[in-house]
Amino acid sequence: MTEDLVVALAHQVDAVLLDVGGTLVEEAPAGTDVTDLVAVLRPGVADALDQLAGRVRLAAVTNTAVMAEADVRRLLERAGLDHFEVVVTSADVGAAKPDPAVVHAALERLGVPPDRALLVGDQPGDRAAAHAAGTRFVATDGGLPDALERAARAATGAAARAAAAVAPLSTSAADAARARQDQLTKPPGALGRLEDLGVQLAGIAGTCPPPVPSRPAVAIFAADHGVVASGVTPWPQEVTAQMLANFVAGGAAINVIARQVDAHVEVVDVGVAGDVSALPVVAHRKVRSGTADLATGPAMTAAEARAALDAGAEVAADLSGRGHDLLATGDMGIGNTTASAALIAAFTGRDAAAVTGRGTGIDDAMLEHKAQIVRGAVDRVAGYLDPVSILAEVGGLEIAALAGFVIGAAAAGRPVVVDGVIALAALLVAERLAPGVASRCVAGHRSTEPGATAALEFLDLVPVLDLGMRLGEGTGACLAIPILQAAARVLNEMATFDEAAVANDPIAER
Amino acid sequence: MTEDLVVALAHQVDAVLLDVGGTLVEEAPAGTDVTDLVAVLRPGVADALDQLAGRVRLAAVTNTAVMAEADVRRLLERAGLDHFEVVVTSADVGAAKPDPAVVHAALERLGVPPDRALLVGDQPGDRAAAHAAGTRFVATDGGLPDALERAARAATGAAARAAAAVAPLSTSAADAARARQDQLTKPPGALGRLEDLGVQLAGIAGTCPPPVPSRPAVAIFAADHGVVASGVTPWPQEVTAQMLANFVAGGAAINVIARQVDAHVEVVDVGVAGDVSALPVVAHRKVRSGTADLATGPAMTAAEARAALDAGAEVAADLSGRGHDLLATGDMGIGNTTASAALIAAFTGRDAAAVTGRGTGIDDAMLEHKAQIVRGAVDRVAGYLDPVSILAEVGGLEIAALAGFVIGAAAAGRPVVVDGVIALAALLVAERLAPGVASRCVAGHRSTEPGATAALEFLDLVPVLDLGMRLGEGTGACLAIPILQAAARVLNEMATFDEAAVANDPIAER
Repeated sequence: MTEDLVVALAHQVDAVLLDVGGTLVEEAPAGTDVTDLVAVLRPGVADALDQLAGRVRLAAVTNTAVMAEADVRRLLERAGLDHFEVVVTSADVGAAKPDPAVVHAALERLGVPPDRALLVGDQPGDRAAAHAAGTRFVATDGGLPDALERAARAATGAAARAAAAVAPLSTSAADAARARQDQLTKPPGALGRLEDLGVQLAGIAGTCPPPVPSRPAVAIFAADHGVVASGVTPWPQEVTAQMLANFVAGGAAINVIARQVDAHVEVVDVGVAGDVSALPVVAHRKVRSGTADLATGPAMTAAEARAALDAGAEVAADLSGRGHDLLATGDMGIGNTTASAALIAAFTGRDAAAVTGRGTGIDDAMLEHKAQIVRGAVDRVAGYLDPVSILAEVGGLEIAALAGFVIGAAAAGRPVVVDGVIALAALLVAERLAPGVASRCVAGHRSTEPGATAALEFLDLVPVLDLGMRLGEGTGACLAIPILQAAARVLNEMATFDEAAVANDPIAER
Repeated sequence: MTEDLVVALAHQVDAVLLDVGGTLVEEAPAGTDVTDLVAVLRPGVADALDQLAGRVRLAAVTNTAVMAEADVRRLLERAGLDHFEVVVTSADVGAAKPDPAVVHAALERLGVPPDRALLVGDQPGDRAAAHAAGTRFVATDGGLPDALERAARAATGAAARAAAAVAPLSTSAADAARARQDQLTKPPGALGRLEDLGVQLAGIAGTCPPPVPSRPAVAIFAADHGVVASGVTPWPQEVTAQMLANFVAGGAAINVIARQVDAHVEVVDVGVAGDVSALPVVAHRKVRSGTADLATGPAMTAAEARAALDAGAEVAADLSGRGHDLLATGDMGIGNTTASAALIAAFTGRDAAAVTGRGTGIDDAMLEHKAQIVRGAVDRVAGYLDPVSILAEVGGLEIAALAGFVIGAAAAGRPVVVDGVIALAALLVAERLAPGVASRCVAGHRSTEPGATAALEFLDLVPVLDLGMRLGEGTGACLAIPILQAAARVLNEMATFDEAAVANDPIAER
């Protein structure tokens, strides 16, 4: 592993937890007596641990009914491995992987939170324990050095890099904006939400007055959903690809509304089932041709979810680099309200039925069926703490891309207007991956989907608009853009009481 | 009276009710015995009634304790006046003017509604009875022909002409818009309120798709309020004139927001107390320098209210004639939330305290005082049915102008975006003067003033925006303009399912 990758990994995680048998040392044949155990190191293990030592905290976690911590330490040290600050065995805690108790115990002793740790193991039980504990996981199929390298590369994806770059809002700029609002020629607070938006834009920009966004862009991430095979929508899957053609031709609602607010429309294929490679203008970043059916298994792998996250982050960086100074989220994907409902239920803890809605318009019977599918999917991720694992299991490719997009935009210092229920599901993921991104977002419109309101409450966001819309595509986000621009303009262009020679401090005047 | 004026009067009223003593005939000296009464016609009466006969229904209404209908008819016929379909005396109904019973009885027998009738009389009691009955009134100080001519001219003012010209919405265009919404590439109803707005715009324009408004204008009517002397606001009255200068300089909130939405700003002085004649750009239509204090008497005369109504209607016609195809209401006037609250209480029947708000921000004690002033003013117009009388007694000059502006815009076929509580008070007046104008209005924003919500409910309007604003100036109306434009664009620019080759009728597809 190169020095660069070690640094990247250390930037993302504070601790690496390593399984013993099959990861650090060769598995002993079943039934070997403890006294006969000899630790045979797997290839490259000693060098890899030497590289990590001092950069991250190290722990060994192992399933063994017959050895306590001291026994394992002695065995490993005899093989030359004395790198472990903490060693926990299933016998010590009274529960074996996939129960996360071993992982929890190690993290507690290290004092490292789950989302800052990586578990390396060779068994499905290791993966399950990692997901349940909320740590990252990497499999050692090809040996430890390879596994660490893959983990390090994942930590260097565009989304991960962007997440690390998201800064807190500038409190000094926000304070200056708040003070300026009270000097402008209007009674204090009389512009209501517009004043709050101005303060937020100043906090995002780090300067007061904040620049007036003049080149907004909406990115529409499109993907298909295997769950349509389970009968959650009456619309055929082909509509996703057909609507992409409609976006390209300029005839969809988002095109019309974007023209009204003078926003650039960027259409991105991250997972449309059909072949849309012939469509001009579309950014082709297909990760896979639609997800698998989340009703019956994982929608995608964690690697695919990460690839989609990275695609989204890269689109945000690209649009930002092209001068677009306000980014709005859009989505297209037949079936995507099902995946969004599952993510919202998983992240907010709300009941599946309470966050499942009619999407494009389904009847009572289909709604009940849809809610059952959402409940089943959510049950599978119960206890998962790792957001990417949840996203992979029950999410969608465009939702993953939207999460990366929001993170990328936040990292670039661009304010983000999020659309409806799909974008909010993505924002729940994004906020877990990069805490604070939501403070750089403005909810454009309150979708009529019940999951939208659940997510808004969880994220403590109040939408700018409430027009009974439920279309997606970014329509609700784009309609809010002129209001954000007006909020920024107020701080830039309104006269103060002094400048305009208008009487202020009215009580004193009398 | 010229033939033109007779036609104009007949266009506005269906019946003329005439007082007898002092109007038709000379007053007999007090104490004259009935048997000695001789009717001496006042100058020009016979000719005037000859002109009206056959054009409007005619009635005589008189206070007399000793004569019944037959007696009065006999007396008048002996003097050559046989024009009256109906004659009612206070003795007949058991109540004398200013009690409106005599007027009510005459209207009932004629079958004419109060707002389509004119009462002509010489006494303050006649005026009071007319206001209480909800009929128009004109005083005969200078004789009957002069009074009728003045009434006819009032009926030919810009606001009256516009009121007569307001057409019902086109149901065929609205139906066509509704049908088109369901053919556009989106699930039915998925654009929520945007679809309703499109249908309304089609109904207003009388064509589907409706034109996309491209040259919006906001008219800010400014005036002062005598009620500030009664301590309803901490802001000094000079702020009204100072803010006009701020509007002219482009530094006020409305200037900033109008620039954002590309709206022309028209500033109109209809009653600023100070001298703003030196300000450039301002349209100078001052009716009087601020109203009188509505806490202690009428804010203005009915003639002044009509002049302000006409000014507003003329501004609307002017802006429309200059190509402004979407008109928004704006207002400026320290103290105008007090007058608005009084109008809203009077027109909606709500309690004064329930519709009185903090305006620019007042404390609890001042709020209670303000509500008491509103209650006292509203009590004075209890039972008044004539909207102009109510407007004159408790309203404001800019509110009257706004009412005329809305009527003028509606008559010109322009959609109107109304702002907050001041504009809604004006719309209550306008809707009474020209029933149906509210259907041509869109409420831009829900002001935090409680009277706004009362008026919105009464008018059955739901605001497009709800951003916690309470500034006036037209800021809430202007912020809604891009949403109206988007609604019109949707009907003009979105592709249909057929045009875009997107699968529709999803159930059938499966």
